[in-house]
This record gives sequence, C-alpha cells and structure tokens, in this order.
Amino acid sequence: MVWIKLRVKIFNVEIGELRSVVNVEDAEKIGVTTRDRVKISAEGGHVVTLVSITNSREVSGPGEIGVFADVLKRVSLEDGDEVDVTYVPPPPSVSLIKKKMAGGRLTSEEVEAIIRDAYEGFLSDVELTAFILALEYRGMDVDEVESLTKAMASVGNRLDFGDSLVVDKHGIGGVPGTSKDSLIIVPIVASAGLLIPKTSSRAIMSPAGTADTMEVLAPVDLTAEEIVEITKRVGGVIAWTASANLSPVDSVFIERVEYPLSVDPESLIYASIMSKKYAAGIRRLLLDIPVGPEAKVESMRDARRIGRNMADLGERLGIHTEVAISYGGQPVGRCVGPALEAREALEILASGGKGSRSIVEKAVALAGILLEMGGVAPIGYGEKAARSIL
Amino acid sequence: MVWIKLRVKIFNVEIGELRSVVNVEDAEKIGVTTRDRVKISAEGGHVVTLVSITNSREVSGPGEIGVFADVLKRVSLEDGDEVDVTYVPPPPSVSLIKKKMAGGRLTSEEVEAIIRDAYEGFLSDVELTAFILALEYRGMDVDEVESLTKAMASVGNRLDFGDSLVVDKHGIGGVPGTSKDSLIIVPIVASAGLLIPKTSSRAIMSPAGTADTMEVLAPVDLTAEEIVEITKRVGGVIAWTASANLSPVDSVFIERVEYPLSVDPESLIYASIMSKKYAAGIRRLLLDIPVGPEAKVESMRDARRIGRNMADLGERLGIHTEVAISYGGQPVGRCVGPALEAREALEILASGGKGSRSIVEKAVALAGILLEMGGVAPIGYGEKAARSIL
Repeated sequence: MVWIKLRVKIFNVEIGELRSVVNVEDAEKIGVTTRDRVKISAEGGHVVTLVSITNSREVSGPGEIGVFADVLKRVSLEDGDEVDVTYVPPPPSVSLIKKKMAGGRLTSEEVEAIIRDAYEGFLSDVELTAFILALEYRGMDVDEVESLTKAMASVGNRLDFGDSLVVDKHGIGGVPGTSKDSLIIVPIVASAGLLIPKTSSRAIMSPAGTADTMEVLAPVDLTAEEIVEITKRVGGVIAWTASANLSPVDSVFIERVEYPLSVDPESLIYASIMSKKYAAGIRRLLLDIPVGPEAKVESMRDARRIGRNMADLGERLGIHTEVAISYGGQPVGRCVGPALEAREALEILASGGKGSRSIVEKAVALAGILLEMGGVAPIGYGEKAARSIL
Repeated sequence: MVWIKLRVKIFNVEIGELRSVVNVEDAEKIGVTTRDRVKISAEGGHVVTLVSITNSREVSGPGEIGVFADVLKRVSLEDGDEVDVTYVPPPPSVSLIKKKMAGGRLTSEEVEAIIRDAYEGFLSDVELTAFILALEYRGMDVDEVESLTKAMASVGNRLDFGDSLVVDKHGIGGVPGTSKDSLIIVPIVASAGLLIPKTSSRAIMSPAGTADTMEVLAPVDLTAEEIVEITKRVGGVIAWTASANLSPVDSVFIERVEYPLSVDPESLIYASIMSKKYAAGIRRLLLDIPVGPEAKVESMRDARRIGRNMADLGERLGIHTEVAISYGGQPVGRCVGPALEAREALEILASGGKGSRSIVEKAVALAGILLEMGGVAPIGYGEKAARSIL
C-alpha cells in the first residue's frame, strides 16, 4: 500500500458526494483512476472519498489534493494541511450491491451495510442508482424487505413512548384534497386517549402534503424530542418527517435517484413507509389505500396485494396493521391546496362535522377504525364514537 | 418561464459533469431543486447544466451562480460576467431512458438522442447508470442494437479509405498472451496487399492490451488522419482506439458506469466492438472468440451465440463478419506482458515463424482466413499463403 504526502487545497463548494481531486502525477504514484477511492489521513482523523484526476496544475498540482466542502463535515482540514493519502478499495457494500444486481439474496447484515454507507454518503451516485434499480428489477423477498425497513429506521432517530399504545394512520397519497384528513383524524383519536404522533411528508407529486397543509396552522419542522413531548402532553401532533430525522436515508434515495428517474421499487415503497412508522414507535397502524384511475394505486387487485404485503411486514415489525381501501376516483372534500384544505379542516372541526360528506365520512370512518384498533371503542362502534367526539 | 440575472463565479475544478451552483434564494425564484437543470445564457452563447443548491453565501451567495470548469468548455465565461438563468426540463433523452427502463423499444432516432446527449455530457451519472442498467435488465432487440452501433459510431471520427477493401481482426480478450497476435497478423495481411487499420484498446482486465504491447515498439496514440495516412502508405497500422476518437462514447460508458459496477450488457458488448469497426471503415471482419474457463467467454454455447449475433449485426452494417472460435484454456505463446510479448512477436517475425506453436499457429490461421476473406488467397489456401508470407 503506497501512501503519499499531499497538501490540502479546499474547494469551498458542496457537490453532494465525498470527493477529492489529485493531479495525474500523484494518481499514478498511488495507483488510482477517476472514480476510485482514496483514504485521507489528517491529524484530526481520516476520511474516504471518491477521487477525480486532473491534468491541470491550477486545479490540483503535483503534491496537492483538492477537497470539496462535503469532506470537511467528516474531518477537519484547512488549506495547506499536510495529509497522507492512499488507495482504498470500494467499501464492501459496493460488492453487496453487485450481488443484488446479479439477483442474489441479501442477509440483514448485508442490507444494513448498504443502508449505513448510503446514509453516510460513502456511495457514489452511480452505486446508489445501481442499488435502487437492482431493487426495481430484481426485487426483494419478505425477509429482505424486513431487513431493509429495520436498517432504514436504525440510521435515524427513534421516538420512545415507553409502554403507551401509539397508533397512526398512513394514506398512500396521490388523490388531491386528502392531505386534510389527518387534521380531522388526529384530534379525534387524541381526544379518545390514544397517542398519535403523525409524521408526514411534504407534497411529492400532489398539490399538498399533510405537512404542507398543517404548516398553514402551526410549525411542522419539529425535532424528535418535540414530537414526543407534544404527543405525551396533548395526545397527538402533526409534524414533518424530515425534521424529526426519521428514516432519513429515504430522502437520500428519493432526491438522488427516485425523483430524477421516476422510479419507486415496490420493496422500497413498503420499507419507506414502515421504516418511519417503526422509528416513530407506532404499535397499531391503519393504512389507507385510495384506489382510482388517477391515484397511485389504480386497481383493487394492486390495492389488495399492497395491503397484504404491508400487513405482513407490519406483523414482522410488531406493528399491527389494518388496511382500508378507499375511493380515490376524485378529489376529496371541496378544496385542494394547503391553505384551502387547512381552512376546510378547521371548519369541519369547529362545526362538529359539517362540510363535504366525502371528507367528513372518510375521516370519521378512519378515525373510528383507529379507536377500535386502540381498544377505546368496541368493535363495530368506532365510527359512532368518532362521530360523537367530532 | 422565469429568467433571473446572476453573476458568474468560477470554480476552477472539473467534476466530470456539467454542473452549476446557485443560492437557495435564487433557486426558489426560478423554481429549481438540486439535480434539476438550468440554462445559462451569456454573451457568447448558452449552456445547460445540472444545478446544485447551496445555503452558503460563501459558495454562491444570492445573485451569484458558481460554475465548475467543465462548463467553460461549452461556453466562454469569466468571473463576474452577468448571465441570464432559467429552469429547463431534462432533455428528451431522459424520458427515452425511462422508456427503456420500463421495457419499451427505442427507435433509431431515440437511440441517437440518448447517445448524443451521453457524449455531450448532458446526462448525469444517475441517468447514465439508468441507461446502462436498462440495457442490462431489459435488453435490446437486433434493430435497437444496430441503431446503438450506428449512433455510437456517428458521434466520433470516421476513417475513410474510399473503395479499398479494408479488413480487420478483433479478438474478444481475456486470455493472457494474446495481445501479440495482432503484431504478427497485421504485417502478414498488409504484405498481401490488403488494408488493415487495426485499432485496439489498452488492457482492461488483462496484463496487456494490443495497444500497450505495440506501444513498446512505436507510438500508438495516432490521430484518425495519421491512421488513414499510414495504412494507405504501408497497408497496415496498430493504433490506440481512444486517440483516434472512434466511438468515443464507449469509454464514457466504461469509465462512468461499467467499470465501477462491473457490468457489461450484452447489447453494449456488440455495439462497442462493432461501432469502432464501423467507424474505422472496415468491410470484412474476422472475430476471434477464445473459449476457456478463465476467458471472457466460458462455453462453446455462449461463443456460438455471440458469434452468430455479431455476424448478424455485421451484415446489417455492411461488414461481412466471420467467426473463429479458438482455444482460450491457457496463455498463448511463452510470454505475458507488453514488453515480453512485443519481443516474442518480433522474434517470430524475424525468424520467419520460429517460436511457440500456440501463438505462431494461431496467428497464421487467423491471417490465412483474412487473406481468403480479402480475396487474395483462394479458399482453403489462406493459411498456406500466410505461412509463406511469414
């Protein structure tokens, strides 16, 4: 293993990857080519980066190593610092991605290694894309999806509610106007004495995510501690998943690969939803799957398959999961968009349930199921209880 | 479409992608998020880049746009230049990549659009990886492979030998010691009056590529013009494919995706080889497929399939292709490595064919087939003719 001494030159710009730049002369000495990795050892620690090679003495001359600002988050470096640099092979997770690309089955330790490296920023865009597309084309069996879900939850925060019964409702989106239903359901369920720390995303493809709509009324960028504290105090909260840092690698996958390529492998749909519920300490989950020609799920057949798989995965995670298949053929309620939906939800709450039947009935029905699941209403009486609370 | 005026700030480092960086405030004004694209219009022209968003005023403050050095190859910019910037959607080739990912069939125009954008550097690592993996998992039919081959040839240089009969031999590598056979075959074939402009790669996985071995004796980094000129003058040449810029997008695929992920989709194996032959103006091609447990092709069955597909593709391109399946079970000749193989080849040429039978017989047999294919030896007499020339 050849180590060479180089002087640090800082490029004060983040590029979204851990990357450094060495001159072609030094690259030959340590035997690296573009997209290989180098280990940089400094006084304060060490870091592994992808490496680019340059011919330009102006960029990184012989004896210099340019580092992008992303690297400085890992190890403290200053212009002119002397560091030791050597070639290192790709992390084991890269071989594991290749194993999945070839159709292999990953153990839970192997899935964890990939997720940890993805979260730490150790994987290049190319490697991360290969992982997501391997999931798309090769799929994962139920054991692998369970491993993926737990691994995704393990790299972020966990909410701890002790022995309390924590419930949640999750809607598989895609239908305009649905973002407001949580604003009605959460208060009903919390009033009945259950804990419901509802974490939601912002809009991805729709006009409003639940977090966007709630933000019209109150801040949603709460920390994990704030979510636990508020939920324990008043029974429920609606917050943004990202600021609580629940299953944060999910947004890495979405931003770097899934959104640019419009892909969403089925195993990752399950793991994405359930890793956040698992991290949030949910014990009983009601999954709402709207079905309609323009909804995310277009057929009853798909809805049943997805529901069954989610329920199976839930049992493996200790989250009892029930599935409600709802009508997703047209917008729900009268209004679409964060501000209008927030007002519509408030009016329904303030008037004791007056408003568009499509939203009131849906919210009451879902809240009722949650009351039954939480054991605070007898089976068959949940909807009635929810309506009387509203 | 919102245009805003920004001042250029140059980051003097190449990152291998066309990328610029804007402050989060300006990103909101033009409605872009990280990994979207922006169009930068300057006095001297315009360029489309991927965009990164920064919070740091030090990197790109409000009113500034940082550009990496790669961008300067497309449009002339200087620090402080005022430019107009707006959001642009991804190029159509990105939707075409998604079409192939979903299993669709690409027309020749669609394949051309992808190849052109890949060559121009308009595709991100994520998009390029998606294209290669779509080829791996979805495959291409023969029409698509023909389109791919022609498109790859069309973005680089073309060698023009007029009406002359131009022949070539191509070995599917992977067997140590084979890099020297071209050093024996090319002089024999050229002596017989045929034109043989042999372009070769450097070693990828093996100890020596033909270009590496030839370079021991003579420069191989020749331009397209030099290859044509030398071939017309002395009948043959051995040169490095890359410096002649034949099918240059092939090395983009290899360096950015195939090498890091160890993937090599079958459609791209065919297109990679044949696009270079097509660009080099080859009319008759002898394909040597060594078969052996450690060779690239491990079974006769695979060798026959690959040979048949290459011959079919050749006919579509106007390149009459014959296939020789050779023994790849152990190294060829006595020496392995550029310098030793170059000396071994020279000794065989100087002694009129004395040396290890495994290399002499192979070279004479392949040269003989080429003499027959080129019409300068009667069928059945090529090997004898080759031996007498040697």
